[in-house]
Amino acid sequence: MGLKRVGNQTVKLENPPSIISTASIVGPKEGEGPLKEYFDMILEDDLWGTESWEKCESKLQEETVRMALTNAALSESDMNYLFSGDLLNQIISSSYCARQLGIPYFGLYGACSTMAESLSLGAMTIDGGFAEKVACVTSSHFSSAERQFRYPLEFGNQRPFSAQWTVTGAGAAILSSSGEGPFITYVTTGKVIDPGIKDANNMGAAMAPAAVDTISNHFRDTGYNPDDYDLIITGDLGSVGKSIASDLMKEEGYDISEVFNDSGVKIFYHEEQDTHSGGSGCGCSAVVFAGYVYKELLKGSLNRVLLISTGALHSSISTQQGESIPGIAHAVTISNSIE
Amino acid sequence: MGLKRVGNQTVKLENPPSIISTASIVGPKEGEGPLKEYFDMILEDDLWGTESWEKCESKLQEETVRMALTNAALSESDMNYLFSGDLLNQIISSSYCARQLGIPYFGLYGACSTMAESLSLGAMTIDGGFAEKVACVTSSHFSSAERQFRYPLEFGNQRPFSAQWTVTGAGAAILSSSGEGPFITYVTTGKVIDPGIKDANNMGAAMAPAAVDTISNHFRDTGYNPDDYDLIITGDLGSVGKSIASDLMKEEGYDISEVFNDSGVKIFYHEEQDTHSGGSGCGCSAVVFAGYVYKELLKGSLNRVLLISTGALHSSISTQQGESIPGIAHAVTISNSIE
Repeated sequence: MGLKRVGNQTVKLENPPSIISTASIVGPKEGEGPLKEYFDMILEDDLWGTESWEKCESKLQEETVRMALTNAALSESDMNYLFSGDLLNQIISSSYCARQLGIPYFGLYGACSTMAESLSLGAMTIDGGFAEKVACVTSSHFSSAERQFRYPLEFGNQRPFSAQWTVTGAGAAILSSSGEGPFITYVTTGKVIDPGIKDANNMGAAMAPAAVDTISNHFRDTGYNPDDYDLIITGDLGSVGKSIASDLMKEEGYDISEVFNDSGVKIFYHEEQDTHSGGSGCGCSAVVFAGYVYKELLKGSLNRVLLISTGALHSSISTQQGESIPGIAHAVTISNSIE
Repeated sequence: MGLKRVGNQTVKLENPPSIISTASIVGPKEGEGPLKEYFDMILEDDLWGTESWEKCESKLQEETVRMALTNAALSESDMNYLFSGDLLNQIISSSYCARQLGIPYFGLYGACSTMAESLSLGAMTIDGGFAEKVACVTSSHFSSAERQFRYPLEFGNQRPFSAQWTVTGAGAAILSSSGEGPFITYVTTGKVIDPGIKDANNMGAAMAPAAVDTISNHFRDTGYNPDDYDLIITGDLGSVGKSIASDLMKEEGYDISEVFNDSGVKIFYHEEQDTHSGGSGCGCSAVVFAGYVYKELLKGSLNRVLLISTGALHSSISTQQGESIPGIAHAVTISNSIE
């Protein structure tokens, strides 16, 4: 068997796994945004009958995976592996979800890059011959994230315009060694890039250089150009980070502006919904992928998409200790044809 | 290419990756324990010239990977992927280490099961044709873990006898598609098992059923029996958890007592060093594997080892919210021969 590597950071899947189903469940605010028609379920409140936001987030993950399984007419016992992660300390949303599902479990942490990280490892696991079917899921919850990373909600702090709004939601995908597509055809794995930003209210700027590094390496590795894609969509740079990334890509020699969008920009009506620079959180990239991107691929209005989930790798301790916020970005090519 | 699955939770590697080098760096207390001769470096203090225990832990990871690379006469740029994780919120030790090394990075979280998780995914990535060489590393630090999960050290709390002592240390391994071994031949991936324990000072009991589930599934999947192994070594059950696991294995129909040991038991002189039930932390399984297990395999005094790293999947928030502590255990077979 030959090595499947192309260039420095990319692998080309030999038998591209098929994304046979997805599901997305979002909170009330996300359900009032421009993508509301794409989500499978919209919660009426952000506790969903649980006692805490953290428990709600775990339920979000679990029910989203169950919905994706139902959409594929499969059950937990058909899954060889579960790849998942979230933003909470010790990724408890994911661990408690995995406890409920009983699927052999690889816990991941890539901050908001986790959706693409889970799709990367899930696809490689199938293409490598280790699994027939895997489930990938990530989540975030505005209220559990806000009190962990920033301030208690009761404090009512003002948010600067560069701040982002953590998406409440979970997105899941079922990957299979057989299926009609869309297919995961390339995986480009990111390095940690640190532009020296120390402001946890300006994460778009912290993550943009990592997105640019991964996207430009993807082009160099694969020989693709921006116009080979119908959509290049980053995880959650928000409007501040998206603008920086677009400019930096030009410095790398690629004008992606015609096909470039960002999940954090797309998910809210920013002025009306007061979400400032845009959505963020593991759930942002996850629900925009599982909802909007996947369904447009099925319709054929998109045919080849580069999904780049972007993560800011900080903790409240690292911020207090004066560390900067490094970024990472993982990319997968999702295509209606095997290339 | 045929599917490499054997049984429900195990894969058999087709071209078993070779562990071409390891390295381990430990803190002063670990350096006074019974395994001191096996560690590559022993720190004189637990800050190592840094400003905080968290920064020391990140430096531990970075220097351990660099030492493993040096031992293999390789450099960072030879590595296709870095698989790593740790116990700290948002795995900052691993992320800051990955920033320094510049290797494409998959962040993992499996609590103290992370060393076997990283070896599992690293081995599958090579066997699947996605990489020639990968680095796997995990770490823990007594002082950064204690203040995050339990009490400030200055508080001087009493520890019950079921409590464990988080190991200060990092262990790293370099895996390669070519080499003389030892080889990773089987990977058994754990499910989350929750025995309902709510006491963060009794993690051995919380993790033992997960270890038993993974070990007994490994035997059922592979057809191996306890006497096919020279050593079956769990991550960090400690003496309390080890005794529970040994009893539960008999209920599963396997008497492993002749070849069973635990990293948390082996690493300290428990009475003299006042470490109660034993060592714990991602670093415990990592340094005992990278130090003792690997070097005894090279000597030939061990020839086939089942390494099972065990994790307790809780956070201080989940404990405060009354959740129990589920466990997980991942296993890899490490053998001097390709089977």
